[in-house]
Amino acid sequence: MVKVGIINVTGYVGMELARLLHRHPQVELASITGRSAVGQRLGEVLPHLADIDLVIQPELGDVELVFSALPHKTSVEAVVAALERGIKVVDVSADFRLKDTKDYEMWYDFTHPMPQLLSEAAYGLVELNRPSIASSRLVANPGCYPTGALLALAPIVREGLIEPDIIIDSKSGVSGAGRTLSLTTHFSEANENVSAYALEGHRHLPEITQELRGLNPALSLSVTFVPHLVPMSRGIFTSCYAKLRDGEKILKELYREFYRGEPFVKVVDAPPQTKQTWGTNICLVYPTIDIRTGRLIVISCIDNLMKGGAGQAVQCMNLMLGLPEEMGLEGAAVYP
Amino acid sequence: MVKVGIINVTGYVGMELARLLHRHPQVELASITGRSAVGQRLGEVLPHLADIDLVIQPELGDVELVFSALPHKTSVEAVVAALERGIKVVDVSADFRLKDTKDYEMWYDFTHPMPQLLSEAAYGLVELNRPSIASSRLVANPGCYPTGALLALAPIVREGLIEPDIIIDSKSGVSGAGRTLSLTTHFSEANENVSAYALEGHRHLPEITQELRGLNPALSLSVTFVPHLVPMSRGIFTSCYAKLRDGEKILKELYREFYRGEPFVKVVDAPPQTKQTWGTNICLVYPTIDIRTGRLIVISCIDNLMKGGAGQAVQCMNLMLGLPEEMGLEGAAVYP
Amino acid sequence: MVKVGIINVTGYVGMELARLLHRHPQVELASITGRSAVGQRLGEVLPHLADIDLVIQPELGDVELVFSALPHKTSVEAVVAALERGIKVVDVSADFRLKDTKDYEMWYDFTHPMPQLLSEAAYGLVELNRPSIASSRLVANPGCYPTGALLALAPIVREGLIEPDIIIDSKSGVSGAGRTLSLTTHFSEANENVSAYALEGHRHLPEITQELRGLNPALSLSVTFVPHLVPMSRGIFTSCYAKLRDGEKILKELYREFYRGEPFVKVVDAPPQTKQTWGTNICLVYPTIDIRTGRLIVISCIDNLMKGGAGQAVQCMNLMLGLPEEMGLEGAAVYP
Amino acid sequence: MVKVGIINVTGYVGMELARLLHRHPQVELASITGRSAVGQRLGEVLPHLADIDLVIQPELGDVELVFSALPHKTSVEAVVAALERGIKVVDVSADFRLKDTKDYEMWYDFTHPMPQLLSEAAYGLVELNRPSIASSRLVANPGCYPTGALLALAPIVREGLIEPDIIIDSKSGVSGAGRTLSLTTHFSEANENVSAYALEGHRHLPEITQELRGLNPALSLSVTFVPHLVPMSRGIFTSCYAKLRDGEKILKELYREFYRGEPFVKVVDAPPQTKQTWGTNICLVYPTIDIRTGRLIVISCIDNLMKGGAGQAVQCMNLMLGLPEEMGLEGAAVYP
Repeated sequence: MVKVGIINVTGYVGMELARLLHRHPQVELASITGRSAVGQRLGEVLPHLADIDLVIQPELGDVELVFSALPHKTSVEAVVAALERGIKVVDVSADFRLKDTKDYEMWYDFTHPMPQLLSEAAYGLVELNRPSIASSRLVANPGCYPTGALLALAPIVREGLIEPDIIIDSKSGVSGAGRTLSLTTHFSEANENVSAYALEGHRHLPEITQELRGLNPALSLSVTFVPHLVPMSRGIFTSCYAKLRDGEKILKELYREFYRGEPFVKVVDAPPQTKQTWGTNICLVYPTIDIRTGRLIVISCIDNLMKGGAGQAVQCMNLMLGLPEEMGLEGAAVYP
Repeated sequence: MVKVGIINVTGYVGMELARLLHRHPQVELASITGRSAVGQRLGEVLPHLADIDLVIQPELGDVELVFSALPHKTSVEAVVAALERGIKVVDVSADFRLKDTKDYEMWYDFTHPMPQLLSEAAYGLVELNRPSIASSRLVANPGCYPTGALLALAPIVREGLIEPDIIIDSKSGVSGAGRTLSLTTHFSEANENVSAYALEGHRHLPEITQELRGLNPALSLSVTFVPHLVPMSRGIFTSCYAKLRDGEKILKELYREFYRGEPFVKVVDAPPQTKQTWGTNICLVYPTIDIRTGRLIVISCIDNLMKGGAGQAVQCMNLMLGLPEEMGLEGAAVYP
Repeated sequence: MVKVGIINVTGYVGMELARLLHRHPQVELASITGRSAVGQRLGEVLPHLADIDLVIQPELGDVELVFSALPHKTSVEAVVAALERGIKVVDVSADFRLKDTKDYEMWYDFTHPMPQLLSEAAYGLVELNRPSIASSRLVANPGCYPTGALLALAPIVREGLIEPDIIIDSKSGVSGAGRTLSLTTHFSEANENVSAYALEGHRHLPEITQELRGLNPALSLSVTFVPHLVPMSRGIFTSCYAKLRDGEKILKELYREFYRGEPFVKVVDAPPQTKQTWGTNICLVYPTIDIRTGRLIVISCIDNLMKGGAGQAVQCMNLMLGLPEEMGLEGAAVYP
Repeated sequence: MVKVGIINVTGYVGMELARLLHRHPQVELASITGRSAVGQRLGEVLPHLADIDLVIQPELGDVELVFSALPHKTSVEAVVAALERGIKVVDVSADFRLKDTKDYEMWYDFTHPMPQLLSEAAYGLVELNRPSIASSRLVANPGCYPTGALLALAPIVREGLIEPDIIIDSKSGVSGAGRTLSLTTHFSEANENVSAYALEGHRHLPEITQELRGLNPALSLSVTFVPHLVPMSRGIFTSCYAKLRDGEKILKELYREFYRGEPFVKVVDAPPQTKQTWGTNICLVYPTIDIRTGRLIVISCIDNLMKGGAGQAVQCMNLMLGLPEEMGLEGAAVYP
């Protein structure tokens, strides 16, 4: 049993990590910290986790690997401290996802204090990056929107079969905004409502473009990304639009081939629904063609707190510890 | 007081018509019919309308104007019968929206029995078509998706300031699917879920393209329309994407000018939300530009049963009867 | 046109008052104040009210009647200041609902600074208290839960036909908790969830017992009241249980007689649903008997922000100003 | 690996059984049948279960134990057929829950064809009935409402510490109504709504009273049970009210003692919420006293499809097969 820890367990990704790690057969959740509720038993703060007999500590204990679920800008310090103690890290914040420090300045108003670690950190989208994650001591867990968008677009972008103009229209459940209180996430405001936000530019855009360009530097991609909030707790539904240059006839086969053998990405034959991924680490991908315009439409569905958060982080951990990739992540969606 | 009637009052648009007409100061709801529940008082079938003291009849009574809320293919017969009796008609079905009988064959699998009426029928999107509605005896009330999409795109299409490729990504509440029972509208299936449907082509697409082309025949439009279902009862949020040719600097002004004086279309300065239109006949339109790509994004929000259904139908009726256009449609959204 | 004002317009009851007063034919909403957003146009803060051309002021302007929508303990001061200026007041806070200052000490931890006004203030449940509201300069608008509970129980309590043990099990939408941010009202926490709260005693209990005892001092009532939170925005469903002493045969008739002529209370023949009251000032009441145990069950449904808040306050205002009681409160529920 | 089957896999309890059994380490889901969709792969009908490589068959295959998820009246025949083949049965229908054939006549309008099996069948509420379930070849899985009500009331009823008058006010998610289509479960009708139903008597009442009376025949119980529908997919929140005769001081201890060592029933110190049980086989029980009236309030929360359905059925299966009771049912709630 490998001892692992969670820094800042009380947010939505933190609590999902605790749930997953507690039932993981090969790791022991040995240490949890919080920005609040220090000294309380986990079950006092999060009753649904009352079976986990741990007290929230001010400092991380003795572990081999740790998940940092701190907010961006704050996480980097905890990550560095853990690395210095020889602890492997999966950082679920944005602090190590971008490679270019200028992106941190522009998008996060943040002068990154450890630029040398940015190149070292592996971007934790396993399906695109398995070897480097497996050998890394620091993995940057992808954002929820980039996970859905990249898995939808990676096959066709890598093959260069589309024009450079891409529209990504994402619809997210409210838990994606985190547990912090705001009018946006007030039930009475979010219920019976759809809204778009960050039309001036969302922080997940540079992450999406960085990774798409990495797949095919020759494509001068021009990406528009618009996130929407829909009245549900979990799930991201991503609709991607682009013009096909070629590949119409082999589209499905190209996607199937790209994801062949992947335990968590399924190329499906009918339009998927977010609910089919509820509580799982699965990404459903559906590529199709608008026959009237020849335009490519690719849809993906994930659970934003699982494949878009804690599930993907555990998938990375499994790789980093040499464990079977699916361990602790089995099970179908809880439906309905 | 002008006597009006509703054919098939028991669906969602029918019952909203009854609610609106009952409190309308210049018309009297005098006759209602139903495909079911004939002989019952309206309040027995729809308790929230118990104040309306009418019995559901098998046949339409003596009225000056009638709304047909029958399903498509079925409505045409009732419409013709009413016209022959000299009754003006607002048809909320699709039976008179399309001008080309071939479209009915392709999209509705339906040989239209009255093609000569197709050219006579006015398309009831008041903001684009006020004079012909006012003088018509037959108005085809627009579909819910076309209403949101057309009001978002009309100004920029008429001016020809965009490239012909348009993406329309719409998010609709469940009442848009009507009151008929299906697994799709089962609460446990629709709740906590987002899905896309009709990816092979939705029946509202020919309606959208017909009207957009009418605004600017020179633009060889290529429209992709993808409707999505989100877990709320009412509302359609439409996100439109296109490439600007020109007009970046005058975008807001162009929209404001186009809709100047319109009582029910508001060009807003911040991204709107469907909930801000709940229970009203208002359409909120927000045009903006993705500064990184220069791409145009236009968002619109409506209540699908009001501006996308019964409200718009009453707006048409007001015009047809020479009444003030806003009569019976006043009032702000019921929020939250 | 009578000039009226709203103190603290930015909460849920405040914004509903603005919506109702703006379309009221005999009053003019002339002055609005806020604890926040002073100096902003109402539509900047509340986009759905953009048609109301008013700026949020720090101080109340010149009006004949004002609604105070401040929180309890804070409202009393504003109420007294208005009364001193000769302005009639409907206070939607709890500051004048209870007659006994000890109740304020016990339930609100509050030494009431104006006990002499407590006896003067009329309790604004119109159906039980019409004459004193009509002649009062200060009306205490009832709490949302008491409104539902009292209208359900008043007929049978006044007649003394039940045993003194009463159970009131209420289910409220989330807007009842107000617009203030809390984890309880976070969408992701409230959605897909039912909870009970205030099991140690809710502040609406003394209000319920005070009014029920006033209806029948001889009954030594013993009331248990448990409020529950359910995942919807609006609505309170109240289930009341008591043992019938007598009156089984005349139950419906007794209720019908009690509420005969009431415009906003309807005794219905089938179990009502909260949605049938959505956006209206209506209370639906359904008394029935559990035939196996002879126990009385009375159900009531209201919209907590209308009959349980702003609607009732406007109903009181109409009485206080000598206007028709239903004015500005017409219209059926917006359903579905 | 023990081979097991599911009769009628396509309903909500059937599909949850498939999900649970597929990941159960000691059983093999070997045969599934359906009333519809015969010949289709399970994943074609239920995409979230696409990993289960089984075809829906017209007839049950070779298994040691089977779950019948057929509707009542229909299930009995399939159960008898399985028993005759020597197959153990967990029947999730109501066909073997009641002991008295008269109850079937009165509540189900059904002359039970196999009355001799009624006494043989074990009532599958494990916490009250462990030994007889373990040794039985036929277990009647309890109804969802009875599960919540009985676990809330069993300790205090067995000890006889309450007066015989009991009120059970239950709030259920919509999946409790099954997957069959009805206006009641239409999203637009159920959303933003609370309703009560079966006020004339719900079929789960005789089940509740039968089992409560079995716990304490001397108490002449008089039970009122009112089920309510709330707008969520899963969960039952049960509020029970009764008058305490005695035991006020030992209440918590009595409950803790009663459920000591139970893996799936937790007596909690703060009011529980249904969401804390989401996707689990856990029942949270919270007994408390209304200090003003001395009245007992007991709250319980379950997931109606798990502890109130498929989870409990698997718990019974584990006992019947001599497997550890918790096997395949581990894991905390998926929250939020």
